[in-house]
Amino acid sequence: MRFFDHPHHDGSALYVHENQVWVRVPAAFPADEVLVRCVVDGEPRYLHAAVDRARAGRALGGYGADDTWWTAVLPAHNPVTPYRFKLGAQWLTAAGLIDHDVPDTGDFKLVTYDPPPAWMADAIVYEIFPDRFAGSLAGKELPDWALAAQWDTSAVVPAGPGVSEQFFGGDLDGITARLDHIASLGANTVYLTPIFPSRSNHRYDASTFSYVDPLLGGDEALKRLAEAVHSRGMRLIGDITTNHVGDAHEWFTDGEAEMFYWLGDGDYESWCGVKSLPKLNWNSPLVWERMTSVMRRWLEFFDGWRVDVANMTGRFRDDNLTHHIAASLRRALPADASLVAEHNHDSTGDLDRDGWHGTMNYGGFLRPVWSWLRGDSCDLEHFLGVPGNVPARDGLATLATMRAFASQMSWRSYVHSWQLLDSHDSPRVRTVVGSREAQIIALGLQATMPGTPMIFAGSEFGLTGVNGEHSRTPMPWNRPDDRCEETLAAYQALFGLRAQHAALRHGGLRWIHADADSLVFLRETEHESIVVAAWRAGAAPALPLPATPLYSAPGLTIGRVA
Amino acid sequence: MRFFDHPHHDGSALYVHENQVWVRVPAAFPADEVLVRCVVDGEPRYLHAAVDRARAGRALGGYGADDTWWTAVLPAHNPVTPYRFKLGAQWLTAAGLIDHDVPDTGDFKLVTYDPPPAWMADAIVYEIFPDRFAGSLAGKELPDWALAAQWDTSAVVPAGPGVSEQFFGGDLDGITARLDHIASLGANTVYLTPIFPSRSNHRYDASTFSYVDPLLGGDEALKRLAEAVHSRGMRLIGDITTNHVGDAHEWFTDGEAEMFYWLGDGDYESWCGVKSLPKLNWNSPLVWERMTSVMRRWLEFFDGWRVDVANMTGRFRDDNLTHHIAASLRRALPADASLVAEHNHDSTGDLDRDGWHGTMNYGGFLRPVWSWLRGDSCDLEHFLGVPGNVPARDGLATLATMRAFASQMSWRSYVHSWQLLDSHDSPRVRTVVGSREAQIIALGLQATMPGTPMIFAGSEFGLTGVNGEHSRTPMPWNRPDDRCEETLAAYQALFGLRAQHAALRHGGLRWIHADADSLVFLRETEHESIVVAAWRAGAAPALPLPATPLYSAPGLTIGRVA
Repeated sequence: MRFFDHPHHDGSALYVHENQVWVRVPAAFPADEVLVRCVVDGEPRYLHAAVDRARAGRALGGYGADDTWWTAVLPAHNPVTPYRFKLGAQWLTAAGLIDHDVPDTGDFKLVTYDPPPAWMADAIVYEIFPDRFAGSLAGKELPDWALAAQWDTSAVVPAGPGVSEQFFGGDLDGITARLDHIASLGANTVYLTPIFPSRSNHRYDASTFSYVDPLLGGDEALKRLAEAVHSRGMRLIGDITTNHVGDAHEWFTDGEAEMFYWLGDGDYESWCGVKSLPKLNWNSPLVWERMTSVMRRWLEFFDGWRVDVANMTGRFRDDNLTHHIAASLRRALPADASLVAEHNHDSTGDLDRDGWHGTMNYGGFLRPVWSWLRGDSCDLEHFLGVPGNVPARDGLATLATMRAFASQMSWRSYVHSWQLLDSHDSPRVRTVVGSREAQIIALGLQATMPGTPMIFAGSEFGLTGVNGEHSRTPMPWNRPDDRCEETLAAYQALFGLRAQHAALRHGGLRWIHADADSLVFLRETEHESIVVAAWRAGAAPALPLPATPLYSAPGLTIGRVA
Repeated sequence: MRFFDHPHHDGSALYVHENQVWVRVPAAFPADEVLVRCVVDGEPRYLHAAVDRARAGRALGGYGADDTWWTAVLPAHNPVTPYRFKLGAQWLTAAGLIDHDVPDTGDFKLVTYDPPPAWMADAIVYEIFPDRFAGSLAGKELPDWALAAQWDTSAVVPAGPGVSEQFFGGDLDGITARLDHIASLGANTVYLTPIFPSRSNHRYDASTFSYVDPLLGGDEALKRLAEAVHSRGMRLIGDITTNHVGDAHEWFTDGEAEMFYWLGDGDYESWCGVKSLPKLNWNSPLVWERMTSVMRRWLEFFDGWRVDVANMTGRFRDDNLTHHIAASLRRALPADASLVAEHNHDSTGDLDRDGWHGTMNYGGFLRPVWSWLRGDSCDLEHFLGVPGNVPARDGLATLATMRAFASQMSWRSYVHSWQLLDSHDSPRVRTVVGSREAQIIALGLQATMPGTPMIFAGSEFGLTGVNGEHSRTPMPWNRPDDRCEETLAAYQALFGLRAQHAALRHGGLRWIHADADSLVFLRETEHESIVVAAWRAGAAPALPLPATPLYSAPGLTIGRVA
C-alpha cells in the first residue's frame, strides 16, 4: 500500500497549534472542500476548512511540495474534542483514510488538560531491575528468604519455584557508578523497578513504602543516585504498586481492614490470586491518603512514577475507580512529575482522562514489532500472556495494529507513552527476533517512531531471555562473550540520531508505504523531514530513499528527504 | 466476501446462556484449539474452550451442519466483561474475524446489569408526531404563535421561518381512533414525540411538564389513548427532553438559577445556541429531583421514554455527567420501563453503563442503509447533519459500518436499539432511496435484522420528505393519491413475518455474504434459521437461497434455510 497520495494530519506541531489544525492534501487527491467534524458537548459540528496559502509550496523535504494545506480553528470547548476531516465521501481519522462511516473511537483528539511535563517529550528511558544491574552480594546480609546467586556464574533459571528468591546483590550505588554507560546510549531517564523492602528480588511485594530497601543501600543510596542522575541533567523514575502491596506490608499486617477487599473467612482479594499481593481497596479514604502521601514524598528523589498494573488498579467486581484514581493522583502530584501507567494489553480507554500521561505501549508497539520481526526459531510459551507463540504477522497487519492503538488515544498520550521492545516482564527482543540484524531493525523503529523509547537494561548488549524471569539477566559487565558490541554500537548510533534530530523526537508521523516485508514512514517538523524505511526481507522498498542516509544497516535506512 | 467458512459467535441465545458462551467453527476452518480471552478487573484472562459434543451435527438449517461447537464459561465477575475468541493467530471479535491485534473496543461484551424489560425484545415501534397524525383544527383555539394549516391542502414547507408554527391540529384522540391502522402494520409500541404544552408544533420546547397540552386533548386524552393502547396489549412511549426545556418553562421563568448554565450578562447556554431551549444544568440537585419526578409521574400512562438529545444531556465544557444521569434515571424508574436514547451520530460510548437500554441507531443502521440504497436522484442538503448529500457506498462499506457500530456495543444494547429508516428529524426513506422497490429492500433489512424496528408514521404509505420538517407530512388518510398501497402491503407482510418468526426477533445475526450490490445474512435460533438476501442491482447473489421463500420482492428474498 502506498500512502503518498493520502491526505495527512496528526497531532504534531506541524499540524496542530493550540486549537488550530491543518491537514495536507496531495494534488493527486481530489478535494474541492475540506470539512472538519468536531464533537462539542456530545454533538458533532462541521467547520469549513480554508486553504492556508502561506503554506503552499512548502516542500517539507522531497515529499508533498505540491500539497494544499487546509486549516480550521476548533472550538476546544471540552477538555477532549474528537475531530476528523471529511474529504468528499471519505473520512480522515487518526486511523487513516476511511471509505465508510465509523464511530468516533478513532477520531483525532484535541486535549486541553494541563500538558505533561515538557521534559518527557525528549526522554529516552533506561529500565533497571536493581538486583541485576550492578553490585554484588559482598557485605550484604541476606534475609532468610533469599537464595544467594553469583553475578557472572549462576544462570538465571527461566521460571519455576525459587525464581523470585534468587538474589544477585545489585544495588543503587552500583547504578550510580554506571551512569556513564547509560548516558552513552543517549538515555536520559533512569527508571527503577521497585526499591522498597519486600520478600522477593522483584520487590513488587513491598513490605513498606517508608524507606528504601537496605539491601539496595537504603535512603542514602537513593539520595546519592538521584543527585548523580540530576547533576547530569537526567531524570529518575520510580515504580509504585497502586494495585496492591506485599502481605508483609504494615498496611496489611497492622492497618485498617477497609484498605483491602475481604472475601470472607479471612480470605482477601489479591493480584491474580497471588496471596502475597493483597489488593488495595480504593473505596477506603485511607488508601487515597496514604498512597498519595507516599507518591508525593518520594518525589524528593524521583521525577515521576511508573504505575504498576495500572489497568487493574481500582477495578474489582462493580468497582471501577481507575479513571478517578488516575486523575486524583495526577492532581496530587507536582506538574513536572510524570505518571506512566503499565497496561499489558489495551490502555486506550484509560488515557486522555487527565490522569496517566501515557502507558507502556505493549499493545501498540511491542506486540506489532515482535509479530512482524519474529524469528523462525522463536518458540515462546506465550505472547505476553496470550497463550501460544508470538504470531507471525505481515507489515500490513503490523501497521494496522499500530494505527488501531495509536488512533484510540490522543497524539499527546501516544508520544508520552513508552515504546518498548522488551522489559523485565517479557522475553528479550533478541530472543524473539532471533538475530542481531533483526534486533537492529526493531531498534530502528523504536529510535525513530513517536513515543518515548524505553530500553530494558541489557538489551543493548543483545542479551537473550525466554521470559520475564529469564530476561532479568545480570548485566554482562565482566562477560565479554555475552556482550554484542555491534548491537551496543547500534543503540548508541540510533539514539544518538534521535538526540540530534528534533524531527525524530517531536515530528509528525506520516506513513508512506507498507507491504508484507516493509514499513516506511516520515517524521516531519517544519524544518526537517526524515524518512525511515525498514524491511525484514528482500531488498529495500522501491521508493526514492536518501542516497546518503544518516544511518543504514541491513533492513534499515534512515535519512533526510532530499 | 464470503463468510460461510468463518467461525461465528454473537450475543443471541444460541451462543450465550447466562455466562456460558459457544462459538461455531466450520469444518473448513482449521482450529485445533479455541481460546476465550476475557478481561476481568482490567486484566485479560485466557480460558480453553471445550468441544460441546451435544451440539455436533446440529444442522441449524442448511448451513453449518458440520460445524464444531466450542464452549466456555466466563467469569462474569464485572458488570461488563469484554471477551473475544482466539483461533490460531486470528481473533474473532464482534467486528468479525481479524488477522491482527486490536484494542478491546470491538470485543463481545457480556453484561450482567439488570436486563431491559422483556417486552422490549418483541417491540415494533411506530413513531407519531402528534400534530400530524390524526385530528383537525375544528373546535381548537390556537395560541397566538400558531399558524393554522389545513390537513390535506396545505403543503408542509421544507424549512424556513414559520415552519415550527404551522399547526395542523392532530391530537391524541385522533391517534386513539387510528390504532387499528398501527396494529395492522404489526407495530405494538406507539412512540409519541412530546405532548407537553410549548410554543411550537414539535413541542420540544416544553413550557411545563405538569400537564398534557390541551391542544392535544389534555391529560384525559392521554389517559384514553393509554387505556386503548394497553387494552390491545400494546405499549406507549413518551418523549422527554433531559437536555433542555422551553424558555417559557416554569423551571426557567420562575425556577432557581442553578438549574441552568449562565454565561454572564443574563445570557444562558441553550441547545445548539437556540435561545428558546435553555440547557439544564445537572450539577443542580433540583434538576435531578424534578426530572426524575416528571419521568416517574408520567409512567402512569407511558411504558417508557425516548430521551431527546441524550448525547448532549449533562455535557457542557468540563461537565460530563451523562453516564451518571443515565444510570440514575434507570435506577429511579420501574424495571419494566424502557429508556431509549437519541444519538444522531455515535451512541456506543454511552451504552452498556446501566443507563440507556438502547439508542436510536442512526449511526449503525440508518446511515449505512441509506448510503447503500441511495437513489440516483437523491439530492439532499445534508446527511443527518453531515454537510453534503447522502454518500453512495457499496455493500462492503455498508457492512463495515454496521459491524463497526454493532461491535462497539453489547448485543443487548444492539437489539434494544431502534433500527430506523427515517424519523421526524430526517428526510423520508422514500425520498432517499427514490423508489418503492428500494424502500422495500430497506424495509426488508429493517424487518429482519436485530434491533427494534421503528417506523415513522407515514412511511408505510411511501410518503416523501426532503428534511425533518418536510417529513412531518400530515397522514394521507384522505389522499389516496399520496398513499402507495403496495408499500403499505409490504410493511404489513414484512412486519407480519417478523411477528411470526422468533428467529427474526430473537435470533443471532450471521453474515454470510457481502459484495458491492448484495448483503446476505442468517437469523438463527436453536429451532429456526432464516436467510435474508438483499441486492440493490443485478441478480440475486449466487448462493443456495430458498426455493420457496417466505417473502420475495425485487432485490429481496427471505426464507427458511432448507
